[in-house]
Amino acid sequence: MKPESRTAVWDRAALCILTLCFSSLHVIALKSQLFTRFGGLPYSTETPITYETIYFDQKIDHFGFAEEGTFKQRILLAAKYWQQSGGPILFYTGNEGDITWFCNNTGFMWEIAEELGAMLVFAEHRYYGESLPFGQESYSDSKHLNYLTSEQALADFAVLIQNLKRTLPGAQHSPVIAVGGSYGGMLAAWFRMKYPNIVVGALASSAPIWQFPGMVPCGDFYKIVTQDFAKSGHNCDANIRKSWKAINNVSSTASGLQWLSEEFSLCNPLKNTLDVMVFKSWLQETWVNLAMVDYPYKANFLQPLPPWPIQVVCKYLGFDSTVSDHQLLHNVSQAAKVYYNYTGSTSCLNTSQTATRSLGFLGWFYQACTEMVMPMCTDGVQDMFEPEEWNFQAFSDECNTMFGVRPRADWAGTVYGGKDIASHSNIIFSNGGLDPWSSGGVTFNITDSLVSIMIPEGAHHLDLRYSNDRDPPSVRAARALEVKYFQQWIKQVKKAP
Amino acid sequence: MKPESRTAVWDRAALCILTLCFSSLHVIALKSQLFTRFGGLPYSTETPITYETIYFDQKIDHFGFAEEGTFKQRILLAAKYWQQSGGPILFYTGNEGDITWFCNNTGFMWEIAEELGAMLVFAEHRYYGESLPFGQESYSDSKHLNYLTSEQALADFAVLIQNLKRTLPGAQHSPVIAVGGSYGGMLAAWFRMKYPNIVVGALASSAPIWQFPGMVPCGDFYKIVTQDFAKSGHNCDANIRKSWKAINNVSSTASGLQWLSEEFSLCNPLKNTLDVMVFKSWLQETWVNLAMVDYPYKANFLQPLPPWPIQVVCKYLGFDSTVSDHQLLHNVSQAAKVYYNYTGSTSCLNTSQTATRSLGFLGWFYQACTEMVMPMCTDGVQDMFEPEEWNFQAFSDECNTMFGVRPRADWAGTVYGGKDIASHSNIIFSNGGLDPWSSGGVTFNITDSLVSIMIPEGAHHLDLRYSNDRDPPSVRAARALEVKYFQQWIKQVKKAP
Repeated sequence: MKPESRTAVWDRAALCILTLCFSSLHVIALKSQLFTRFGGLPYSTETPITYETIYFDQKIDHFGFAEEGTFKQRILLAAKYWQQSGGPILFYTGNEGDITWFCNNTGFMWEIAEELGAMLVFAEHRYYGESLPFGQESYSDSKHLNYLTSEQALADFAVLIQNLKRTLPGAQHSPVIAVGGSYGGMLAAWFRMKYPNIVVGALASSAPIWQFPGMVPCGDFYKIVTQDFAKSGHNCDANIRKSWKAINNVSSTASGLQWLSEEFSLCNPLKNTLDVMVFKSWLQETWVNLAMVDYPYKANFLQPLPPWPIQVVCKYLGFDSTVSDHQLLHNVSQAAKVYYNYTGSTSCLNTSQTATRSLGFLGWFYQACTEMVMPMCTDGVQDMFEPEEWNFQAFSDECNTMFGVRPRADWAGTVYGGKDIASHSNIIFSNGGLDPWSSGGVTFNITDSLVSIMIPEGAHHLDLRYSNDRDPPSVRAARALEVKYFQQWIKQVKKAP
Repeated sequence: MKPESRTAVWDRAALCILTLCFSSLHVIALKSQLFTRFGGLPYSTETPITYETIYFDQKIDHFGFAEEGTFKQRILLAAKYWQQSGGPILFYTGNEGDITWFCNNTGFMWEIAEELGAMLVFAEHRYYGESLPFGQESYSDSKHLNYLTSEQALADFAVLIQNLKRTLPGAQHSPVIAVGGSYGGMLAAWFRMKYPNIVVGALASSAPIWQFPGMVPCGDFYKIVTQDFAKSGHNCDANIRKSWKAINNVSSTASGLQWLSEEFSLCNPLKNTLDVMVFKSWLQETWVNLAMVDYPYKANFLQPLPPWPIQVVCKYLGFDSTVSDHQLLHNVSQAAKVYYNYTGSTSCLNTSQTATRSLGFLGWFYQACTEMVMPMCTDGVQDMFEPEEWNFQAFSDECNTMFGVRPRADWAGTVYGGKDIASHSNIIFSNGGLDPWSSGGVTFNITDSLVSIMIPEGAHHLDLRYSNDRDPPSVRAARALEVKYFQQWIKQVKKAP
């Protein structure tokens, strides 16, 4: 097989969504199936939780007046421990997916509600889950997608909270704290920055608010993924780095394609170069996902997985580097199956899926193609992936083809302040040392009230999850400190005249 | 004539635009003529000033991606005194009108440029002056008007400044200070609140950021107008208060209508009840305008006027209250002519015009009918006007008829923080004690860096005007203090790492 052309390489460029990374080629393969994913059932959770579901009428357009339509935003409310009147409200700023899934995966809020006497509110992000501005037409074209922006989502949150305060007896003087993880964490931070009148502070967990053009090196994300593998087993990263060439070699013949398909138990056998590219993207995403969910205990966030799953994966990849391509890929397939078939119930591996159906992939791709421009690149040296540069123009062209829109590279930095956010206050940025998204996170204190909490042994927003006996001390300390800040913010408000 | 019905009273309810107040009836009378007003020539100015005019490509929609069009935003640039590199930029956040008019009427900036080594930038607000997103179609319907919002205007300013910093050699590290008066002052304050990454501070002169529902009493505005007249001449307010009934009495006969028309030298004689209502609205607006431009020296802001024009007006209205209706109205007409015919060159008075053509009335009416909902009311007791309640529903219906949109009463408070703005920093709110708009202004210090400067003898943004020998000491002190704050903000930035 010939060296890939620049365009072909671009076509595999990573389009990272906050909880997942996909190659753009993969996206195209997925696109047609995606809409049907919405509204999937949440995974089961560690502790039974109960909440009330309400539907709040939101303006479709907060920033213009020609579109006067409204839609039903889904809200989950839990007031069991709320200290009326004036007890705090912990407000989860919903991400790119079904809010029940985030609700079930944010055990931290459920665990501290009683201590704080807090009401919990989980607000679904427009265009995800059940909160579809135009129902089944919401994703039909760029006109219908026009109101899918972070600014509109923040305005939804603001209007909702103002309304809750007006209508919920006892809530009028309740201090509200925004909480979010990943993209939801970015929203929590931005919410405090843009609406300090509405929320007294924010916990932005694993929120890569600096993963935008010109703010951090585009290669840092994949470097962290690589480091996670490097430290989880001897030669683990080196063998993955070699696997791409092995795949190229083996897939160059028809029999090789067949062998690969069987070895990886693929549901749809590889047939051509395009399939192989999608396959490699899928594999790359698999390693990225593992880095995000490298939790110290058995968990089911993106997939059901064992404790420290990368260590388990690396058991298959710790061999010497002199093995044959076939042997190497056999082991890679064993490793991949840790991720895809830990329960042993998977009959075949589907390269069009890498994680839970509760995330709204298509919506996030649109957001990445408009505001959420997050450059990613690999060099194959400091990371274990095939080299791929960041090419904004090609990305923009692809967005134009997919959605009929073009990304605005500088807008997020302009509207959300980029690195110049020191004048804001009361935001905690927590990051996990294992989490590739910490590459774009705030990992140092900016001021006394814009603080960073690092969790060296933490993967993606570990602090927001339910506590666990196997939690490292750093995450326990992080959660305790977070609660302390919450209490401090609440006290500040109660003191104010 | 019968007592006016509720609806009729509503129809005369004041729709205040930032530099002027109009009754909604008046608006309807004006509407058809308004578009042609754009692009009027600026008035002559005290000092010859020179600037470069540039046209900057702005996105029509910053908050959505379906509309990819751009328009030319007009920018005035003056770099004569700019200390490259890194010298500060004073950025005027353009209001509802032709930017050259504001540029010519903001002598303060021109006078301090040299001292600060500052570049001056005056940015025209979209939909006003030459900055029309859809050219002559911009006001054609609610679809075209959809992008006329303060949020879009602020985004224009932010994107423009980021671009200037990238492209103007020496500007990269220039601290930018927002300056604005009236609606422009609101924008300056909001600009600092929403984009503290772009501007280090803001001077918001005569900016009624609290003139929104639920924030200040709706009657305060007209109370201040009344106080201005009360203290400018014995019986002056009382006689104006009586004049409305006198007009009703006199206009109840055909001969009375004719007499009134002649007495006031009206270009278009009054013919019916509707004309009389428009006439009363026009007269009310005349008194309001006088309150806004009650400057201590001869000036030509809304109209050419003598020093302390209300004192001159009140010379005609200082008589005893026992005079006949006809005598009273004769004197009122003399008083009105101080405003409309100070130069003696006006052949007749036109009730469809009260001030300069450089303001974009129709645009502001649209803004008032969408975001800028500013309740106004009168009771005829604490003020000198006919009683009129604030009726949001009727206002909303009228907006719907005029523009096909409905105002959102709570939005401005939600998005710009209302009274909860203490977490922001580096904003000066200056207000004149004579200015009716101080009713909605910030007239006390909120924090050490959200400060109020009061100018007791000042009318509408007197501090932003050229200095004058007749300036009261309070405005001289205000300007000196403003410059001191500017220097402090600039120093803060230079100190920052």
